[in-house]
Amino acid sequence: MSLAFEVVARDGAARTGRMALSHGAIETPVFMPVGTYGTVKAMAPDELIDLGAQIILGNTFHLWLRPGLDVIAAHHGLHRFMGWALPLLTDSGGFQVFSLGKLRKVSEDGVRFASPVDGDRLLLTPEESMRIQHVLNADIAMVFDECTPYQIEDRSVTHDEAAISMLLSLRWAQRSASEFSRLGSSNNLFGIVQGGMFESLRDESLARLSDMKFEGYAIGGLSVGEPKEEMLRILTHTAPQMPYEKPRYLMGVGTPEDLIEAIGVGIDMFDCVLPTRNARNGWLFTRYGDLKLRNSRYIADTAPPDETCACPTCRSFTRAYLHHLQRVNEILGARLNTIHNLHYYLNLMRQARDAIVTQRYTQFRAEFARDRGRGV
Amino acid sequence: MSLAFEVVARDGAARTGRMALSHGAIETPVFMPVGTYGTVKAMAPDELIDLGAQIILGNTFHLWLRPGLDVIAAHHGLHRFMGWALPLLTDSGGFQVFSLGKLRKVSEDGVRFASPVDGDRLLLTPEESMRIQHVLNADIAMVFDECTPYQIEDRSVTHDEAAISMLLSLRWAQRSASEFSRLGSSNNLFGIVQGGMFESLRDESLARLSDMKFEGYAIGGLSVGEPKEEMLRILTHTAPQMPYEKPRYLMGVGTPEDLIEAIGVGIDMFDCVLPTRNARNGWLFTRYGDLKLRNSRYIADTAPPDETCACPTCRSFTRAYLHHLQRVNEILGARLNTIHNLHYYLNLMRQARDAIVTQRYTQFRAEFARDRGRGV
Repeated sequence: MSLAFEVVARDGAARTGRMALSHGAIETPVFMPVGTYGTVKAMAPDELIDLGAQIILGNTFHLWLRPGLDVIAAHHGLHRFMGWALPLLTDSGGFQVFSLGKLRKVSEDGVRFASPVDGDRLLLTPEESMRIQHVLNADIAMVFDECTPYQIEDRSVTHDEAAISMLLSLRWAQRSASEFSRLGSSNNLFGIVQGGMFESLRDESLARLSDMKFEGYAIGGLSVGEPKEEMLRILTHTAPQMPYEKPRYLMGVGTPEDLIEAIGVGIDMFDCVLPTRNARNGWLFTRYGDLKLRNSRYIADTAPPDETCACPTCRSFTRAYLHHLQRVNEILGARLNTIHNLHYYLNLMRQARDAIVTQRYTQFRAEFARDRGRGV
Repeated sequence: MSLAFEVVARDGAARTGRMALSHGAIETPVFMPVGTYGTVKAMAPDELIDLGAQIILGNTFHLWLRPGLDVIAAHHGLHRFMGWALPLLTDSGGFQVFSLGKLRKVSEDGVRFASPVDGDRLLLTPEESMRIQHVLNADIAMVFDECTPYQIEDRSVTHDEAAISMLLSLRWAQRSASEFSRLGSSNNLFGIVQGGMFESLRDESLARLSDMKFEGYAIGGLSVGEPKEEMLRILTHTAPQMPYEKPRYLMGVGTPEDLIEAIGVGIDMFDCVLPTRNARNGWLFTRYGDLKLRNSRYIADTAPPDETCACPTCRSFTRAYLHHLQRVNEILGARLNTIHNLHYYLNLMRQARDAIVTQRYTQFRAEFARDRGRGV
């Protein structure tokens, strides 16, 4: 099918848009909380909706292994399995097999690896990834790609290595598209731009993916260990060249600062485990910088994490209470921190959308940087 | 102060009543979820209220050690610290120091032990327990007592041993009452009947506590390893003799069957970690018996845990999903299971209250036993 997406307003390269999917409409720029195993860790679906989550991400690799496809199929897809009624995006599993490191073996066919759950020998191919995602039945599926590493054995990947990897990803993108089409899916398939830290390879990847006519385009292979400047160089080079009329998705990135930078060069969609993972470790993102709850300075601090924050956590609980929950490792701590961090990320996207509509993104960005630099 | 409590209806020895406390009114029989460290594990305060919790319990021993009294005092008590606006009860710490086993040393003064957190040498006395509970500032405080064990080194406790322990608890009850009075607390203090497995000692304990005029009376020292028949023998003997016009509280008990039995002999209040602890281990209490989620028979079962249950978990999620969350150890599993189990316990109390008011407690009890025996 053809995904309905329109850019509603622009401010410089930044843009705000609207995407219509079968489970609902999304306003961009959008942050997608990560729901690895069929749950955004510590969160219930109704809480995510209350926080303003418009779409969440499920991990194909994890769900394939546990609970397995038969269980998801018995629920007619991931939506019903996890009780989530709004749009869903599934990744392809490519990044997760990449993360297995030396335990994987890449060939033209796909990636062979031993299951981290039970040691079973498994093969993930572009076709298999599409079949799994077809069962998961998310609104948006991703092509199966190879994530080009930043380093191999302590040296940077060469141009030739990145080129070989990018070309393999292109062939896999084509195979993904063919299988997706053969399955007759009514969902949307996005392509993923690779090419490592080389602008020319990114250009080639983007050009050839554009010819394949995907419903959206993602930038993959960033935030894989490279210095921040390298990431920004590739992002700034690539994002503005991506098809204007299609959603642009920066995969697996990043900090609040990364998101504000990326929106400035025209990115529409994000996912990252940072707000949820850091929450569980007692790390809160706030308007005035990051607050590490384990710090003993908070032991008797009766202020909320952020006086200016309207989230349920800041409205009802003190830093001292959250510090305590973190120290005694209570589940409620993980919950309240996750609520705060997701609210922070989702609210930051709302503010960015407003700033773009009202043509003050540059000012918003300056205020954001000033406040974040102030310190908690 | 004098606690306002009235028995509203009776059906045999079973009774339903109403208790007015400074943070709200409570209908009895009531189950109090346990909030050890300033949180009912995995639950947020608003969720507990939605589930119908009227009062929850905080553990003096745990809160004394972490976060410590200075932190609670900075919040003017446990209510504000944990964001709980309804009534609270705190135990005395007696049971927790008892649970330390050989690591504690009991004298006339109190109990010496090494802190399980940092090894510090600590002394808990009746006076210290009252001072701690005064800072926690719960609606109901408990006297500091010695929980008489069921066995010492693999043999049952003798009558003389139980008598010595019970008499110590009586002297501590008097010291607790004096200190509570000296502190000028506006809250309510309950006495605790001890006496081990000996009816005559229970009688003596109850008679002497009654003379001290507490605002309520608890049965302690049950569910400490004795066979079920022993517990029921002491419960059935003691409960009906407790002052009619005061709340009767059975501490730390028990299964749904225990609660229904105890209500039948006139108990008004319960607390137990069973619904919350078992939830985290994937053990659900349901109308038709207990459901152990880890059982592989549930792997693709798309039914809710209990078709007849109106809790948020049963309304939205399948056994297969909960089985999966348990297997991959997701926080949401602990949450959804805890919601279900607390709903089950709190709803069971609602049903018992209704049955007493309408004079059909005997029938309700028979139906309860028949349904629970059916099996999931």
